[in-house]
Amino acid sequence: MHYKLCFIGFGNVARSLVRLFERKRGLLKSTYDITYSVTGIATGRHGFAVNPDGIDVGQALEKVESGNSIAQFSNSPVSNSLDVIQHSQANVMFENSPVNYESGQPAIDHVRAALNLGMHAITANKGTVVHAYQELTELAKSKNKKFRFESTVLGGSPVFSTFREAMPLAELTSFKGIINATTNLILSRMEDGESFDDAVKYCQSIGIAETDPSGDVDGWDAAIKVSALATVLMDSPLKPQDVERKGIREITAEMVKQAKAEKKRWKLVASAEREGERVKGRVAPELVDSSSPLYGMMGSSSGLTFSTDVLPNYSVIVSEREGMKGGPEETAYGLFADFVSAVRG
Amino acid sequence: MHYKLCFIGFGNVARSLVRLFERKRGLLKSTYDITYSVTGIATGRHGFAVNPDGIDVGQALEKVESGNSIAQFSNSPVSNSLDVIQHSQANVMFENSPVNYESGQPAIDHVRAALNLGMHAITANKGTVVHAYQELTELAKSKNKKFRFESTVLGGSPVFSTFREAMPLAELTSFKGIINATTNLILSRMEDGESFDDAVKYCQSIGIAETDPSGDVDGWDAAIKVSALATVLMDSPLKPQDVERKGIREITAEMVKQAKAEKKRWKLVASAEREGERVKGRVAPELVDSSSPLYGMMGSSSGLTFSTDVLPNYSVIVSEREGMKGGPEETAYGLFADFVSAVRG
Repeated sequence: MHYKLCFIGFGNVARSLVRLFERKRGLLKSTYDITYSVTGIATGRHGFAVNPDGIDVGQALEKVESGNSIAQFSNSPVSNSLDVIQHSQANVMFENSPVNYESGQPAIDHVRAALNLGMHAITANKGTVVHAYQELTELAKSKNKKFRFESTVLGGSPVFSTFREAMPLAELTSFKGIINATTNLILSRMEDGESFDDAVKYCQSIGIAETDPSGDVDGWDAAIKVSALATVLMDSPLKPQDVERKGIREITAEMVKQAKAEKKRWKLVASAEREGERVKGRVAPELVDSSSPLYGMMGSSSGLTFSTDVLPNYSVIVSEREGMKGGPEETAYGLFADFVSAVRG
Repeated sequence: MHYKLCFIGFGNVARSLVRLFERKRGLLKSTYDITYSVTGIATGRHGFAVNPDGIDVGQALEKVESGNSIAQFSNSPVSNSLDVIQHSQANVMFENSPVNYESGQPAIDHVRAALNLGMHAITANKGTVVHAYQELTELAKSKNKKFRFESTVLGGSPVFSTFREAMPLAELTSFKGIINATTNLILSRMEDGESFDDAVKYCQSIGIAETDPSGDVDGWDAAIKVSALATVLMDSPLKPQDVERKGIREITAEMVKQAKAEKKRWKLVASAEREGERVKGRVAPELVDSSSPLYGMMGSSSGLTFSTDVLPNYSVIVSEREGMKGGPEETAYGLFADFVSAVRG
C-alpha cells in the first residue's frame, strides 16, 4: 500500500520524523509492503506546499533549514494549514503545531479537518487530547480512521499503545512518576551546584526549555500530561486546571543541598488515582530517598509507574544515554510508530 | 465469537488464569464480544478431562484444589495431554507444563499438536521459545494461527507484545537487567542480614524457588530468558548454554555486607548485545551503585533496559507492591493478554 503524507507544523520533531521515514524506507517496504510520499507541508515561517504527485523532501528540508520558503514546491496556491490538509490528498496527517494549553487550537481544527477528509490523524500535541479526546476519537471511529497521540507523554516511548495493544482489559487504578524532563534536568543540575537560573538557561540552550520556561517550571506541562493520561487510560476526562499543581520555583539551592546531605532528592512528581467515581490528579515536588524508583531518574530522564488490577506495579522509564539527550528523534519515533499502527489497522 | 479453551498443565498459573477469565468474563463480552468455555484440562496429578460442550470450571478447580481427580467431568476417555488436545475441539490451547531447560519437551509437542489442529497456542514455557521458536512460528503462520509466549519473561508484563505492537521497526542492539526474581530476593534478604541458605529456604516457603534451587541460583533461569529475548527480539537464535553464565553462589554474606557499607549492591545482571553478526549473552553478578537503575530494584522486582536505534534507553520494571508478591496472577495475565491479542488478530 502507498500512503500520501502531509505534515502540519515542520519544526524539529516533524523534520526528524521525515528523516526517520527516509531511513526506514527500505524496512517499511520489506517488512510491511508500505511505501509513502510527502504531498503536503505547512511550516510556521517558511511557507506552505502541496503536490499530490509528491514533494522532494530532501529539497524541502534543505530550504527550511537554510531559512528559505518551500512555496516553490507547491503545484497549487495554498496559504495556510487547512489549505494544505485540503489539497494534499494525503492519507495520513501529522500534526505538530505548537501546543496551546488552554484551547488546544489550532491543532484540534487540523485533526478534525483531516479526519473529515478520511485521513488518519497523528499528533504529538497534548492539547488535542485534553481538550477534544472524546470528540476526535468518535469522529475517527465514524470515519474508520485512527486518531493517535503516542508522543504526547514520555517523548515517543510506548505508553498508550502498550495499554491499547498489550494490556487488554487491565484496569488502571493509579499512576505516579516524573513526566517533565526539563524540571528533572534543572533539579539534577542544581544538585551539582548550579543555580536555578543557570540551569534554566542551560535547558534553553539545548532546546528543551522554552524562552518562557513557566510551562515547565510551574508544572503546567506535567499537569497537562496527567490530564491526557487520566482521560485516555482511566476513562476520566480531567482538565489541566483540575490537577492540583505546584511547580519547582520554591525549591531553593539550600533545600537541594540539604536533601543531598541526607542522601535524598527533590523530584517533581506527577500522579493520579481513582477516588470513587472521579480521578484526582496532582503535580508537586517531593523529597525521595534511594528506596524510591524515582531517586535514580536523573537528568532528562522520565518515567511512570502504573498500578493495575492485573499487574500491580508496571513501570516504564525513558532514560538518558551517555552523550545523547532525549529529544525530537524520540518524539518522532512515537509518531512513526503511530503511523505504522494506524495504517496496519 | 465463542472460543473453546483447553489447559495443558493445571498448576498455580493455569488455575489463576481460569480465575482471571471468570473475573473478566463480563468485560470480554462487553468490550470485544468474546465468550468462552473450557473444553479440556490436563493435570499433572489429578487426571484428564475433555468435554466439547464445556466443563464446569468452578467444580474442576475445587476438585484439583482439594486433591481429587477431574476425570468424572470427561465425556470421553482421555489419558494424557495429547489426548486432551486432540479431543477437546478447542480453539485455543494454554500450555503450562513444567519447563525442561534442555529439550523444551513435552511442551513443544503440545504446541505443535495444537497448531496442527488449528488452535492458537499460548504458553508460559520458555523451553518452547529457546528450542523451537522458528519451527513453531512458521507452523503457526502456515495455519494462520498464533504462537504466543508473553509470560516467559518479566512474569506476564508486556515485553514481546510491546516490541511487536508498539515499537515497529525498532532495531534492538542490546538489553540489560535483572530477570530472575528469586536471586534478587535472596540478595535483598542477605543485605538485611539473612544467610544465603535461609534466604533460599524463604524463597521456597513462598513458592518462588524450587526444591532444587540451582535453576535460579546458578543462573540457568536468567540464561534461558536471555536466550528467549535474543532469539525473538534480536532475530538471533541463542541457546542457554551459549550464554556466558555465573550464578550467585560465590556471593558471600561478607561481600554483601562490604558492598552495603560502600552504598553498593550485588545484583545478578543479565544482558545481551550485538557483536557483528552474532549476539553475545551474559549472566553474572555485578556490583552496582545508586547511579544504576538496577540499584533500586529490590526483593522480587525485575526489569530490563532496552537500547534501540530509535529509543536509546527504554526500561520496563516490574516491582513488588507492598504486601503483594509477584506471582502466578501476573504470569496468568500475560497468558490472558496473549489470548486477547491472538483471537483479535
